[in-house]
Amino acid sequence: MKSHQVTIKDIAKILGISASTVSRALKDHPDISFETKKKVKELAEELKYKPNAIALSLQSNKSHIIGIIVPQIVHHFFSTVISGIEEYAGEKAYNIIITQSNENPEKEISNCRTLLSGRVDGMIVSRTKDTENFDHFRNVLGTGTPIVFFDRTCHGIKTDKVVIDDYKAAYEATEYLIKTGCRNLLHFSGPENLKITSKRMWGFADALKKNHFPFNEDLIIKADSFEEGRKMIFKLHKENKLPDGLFTVNDMTAAGAMSALNELKIKIPEEISVFGFTNGAISKITSPSLSTVEQNGHLMGYTAAEILINKIENETHEVLTKILPTKLIIRNSTRHL
Amino acid sequence: MKSHQVTIKDIAKILGISASTVSRALKDHPDISFETKKKVKELAEELKYKPNAIALSLQSNKSHIIGIIVPQIVHHFFSTVISGIEEYAGEKAYNIIITQSNENPEKEISNCRTLLSGRVDGMIVSRTKDTENFDHFRNVLGTGTPIVFFDRTCHGIKTDKVVIDDYKAAYEATEYLIKTGCRNLLHFSGPENLKITSKRMWGFADALKKNHFPFNEDLIIKADSFEEGRKMIFKLHKENKLPDGLFTVNDMTAAGAMSALNELKIKIPEEISVFGFTNGAISKITSPSLSTVEQNGHLMGYTAAEILINKIENETHEVLTKILPTKLIIRNSTRHL
Repeated sequence: MKSHQVTIKDIAKILGISASTVSRALKDHPDISFETKKKVKELAEELKYKPNAIALSLQSNKSHIIGIIVPQIVHHFFSTVISGIEEYAGEKAYNIIITQSNENPEKEISNCRTLLSGRVDGMIVSRTKDTENFDHFRNVLGTGTPIVFFDRTCHGIKTDKVVIDDYKAAYEATEYLIKTGCRNLLHFSGPENLKITSKRMWGFADALKKNHFPFNEDLIIKADSFEEGRKMIFKLHKENKLPDGLFTVNDMTAAGAMSALNELKIKIPEEISVFGFTNGAISKITSPSLSTVEQNGHLMGYTAAEILINKIENETHEVLTKILPTKLIIRNSTRHL
Repeated sequence: MKSHQVTIKDIAKILGISASTVSRALKDHPDISFETKKKVKELAEELKYKPNAIALSLQSNKSHIIGIIVPQIVHHFFSTVISGIEEYAGEKAYNIIITQSNENPEKEISNCRTLLSGRVDGMIVSRTKDTENFDHFRNVLGTGTPIVFFDRTCHGIKTDKVVIDDYKAAYEATEYLIKTGCRNLLHFSGPENLKITSKRMWGFADALKKNHFPFNEDLIIKADSFEEGRKMIFKLHKENKLPDGLFTVNDMTAAGAMSALNELKIKIPEEISVFGFTNGAISKITSPSLSTVEQNGHLMGYTAAEILINKIENETHEVLTKILPTKLIIRNSTRHL
């Protein structure tokens, strides 16, 4: 589809004007007359001139594009983070391009390459569950392109991070279940190699211990999706091991658990209280509505963009870890205090 | 953060080898010795060499990147379309970068610019609700970059489209409500200037007429989000105008309506049947689960990518409109036949 790439010089030669006039005309520079702009633009259109990313960026040495890598945009949390990034980036006249790793470390590596070749000024990243080797991120940093990590960060890379206090949030959610009368608690958890999920696990465990509840590892069960949450409830019901209080690693798992409990005609919160984590869109849609931890993805994205753009524009070398506040959102899947 | 951009020539000069050897070494070309590769890569890392998008793409004249513009990735439908695009693109070794317009036509224009300057080989687009002027898309096509539209297409631009038969799907959903005993139907609809929503409206209207139900425009009410669906149910309840069958333009609106009906203790489907459109993730989460139209976003994305990549690689000029099949998914928010 593409043949010879028409350049600004070609247009300049044909019209008998300077390349810099052509360039400024294409950018609607106020110094250029309306007539010249019209002539230049018409010819550019006729010749199918395509602005050259490098030519544009060489002028300022910046593309004003931020690249994002997230595991899956289908997760409401990540799309709210992106909306926060877009908001701050928009204020600063940056554009953003998004890629997803689909929880595949190989894909994450190729995303880094794609974004670098798109000449982004910086990246905002939440890594896959399975990323164990962080060299691709080190390579990006090596090109002078800053990265800000959020939510799922990488241990051992010296770069900026925006996170919440997952431990404290999980501790508080578990303590809320205890205070509202739950005596027999379980936690549906995510993979242990993610810091955020192991911190939620410890928060749950410590809240039990601090409140003199017996604790053993059987109280933590791996289930971190809608389907797994459903299956696990049916399994526990069959084995007669249902708890009276359930804290889940995310809202989707809670929604799955509640869908199974509804089918089994087990009353929420009378017979079992359910506490989620994220405060995503579905927490209002579940029946009953879901008590959860407000993770504030929008603020997380906004803050990450703020740190990144500051780094791009002011070339600071300071490394920040920003911890954002969380709060409990109490709806109808738990008893009230 | 960036200063002088190190080039392949710089590396070649320092090592006293040719630029083409450096280039092939960086790409792990089998003709280049292990020693040379090691030397080149170490120096490239030391000098913070950043591969040059244009240099890379000039070799093949293709970037192997597809750009996507969607209104909002937070909508499950769009993220499933993207997953379909990723699947086919992955098979063909293309990378994708995603931008969102946030239903803002100005943003859509700047997305086109960002993607062009990122030198995408082609674009897959679903436009905003409010895009009325399509010149930015014409400009993209003018640069020789093909576009495939999906779902929300642009009237009057000669380019490929992937859509479903919204009229037929809406007709069938409405007829299903009639066949299962609904006598007093309403449709919660989207904006009229979107072809997909006006077609769903006509499908609803024609199914009523064909079945000898009285029809007037009051049976079509503007409400196309969770919040609007909720509000409208409360309003109709107050005015004593609740229907016994409701067909909504999308699942989110149905979920909002059902959340209000649940609060009002109105039984679904005994007192009112609810039929959605999309078959998104929430259709399983609502209480009861939602009967809906399977829109098959994944197949839509896969097909759009197939058409686009064929166009990029084979430079065909044929213009296609592909209509994908839909089906009714019957769950528990409607009576059964």
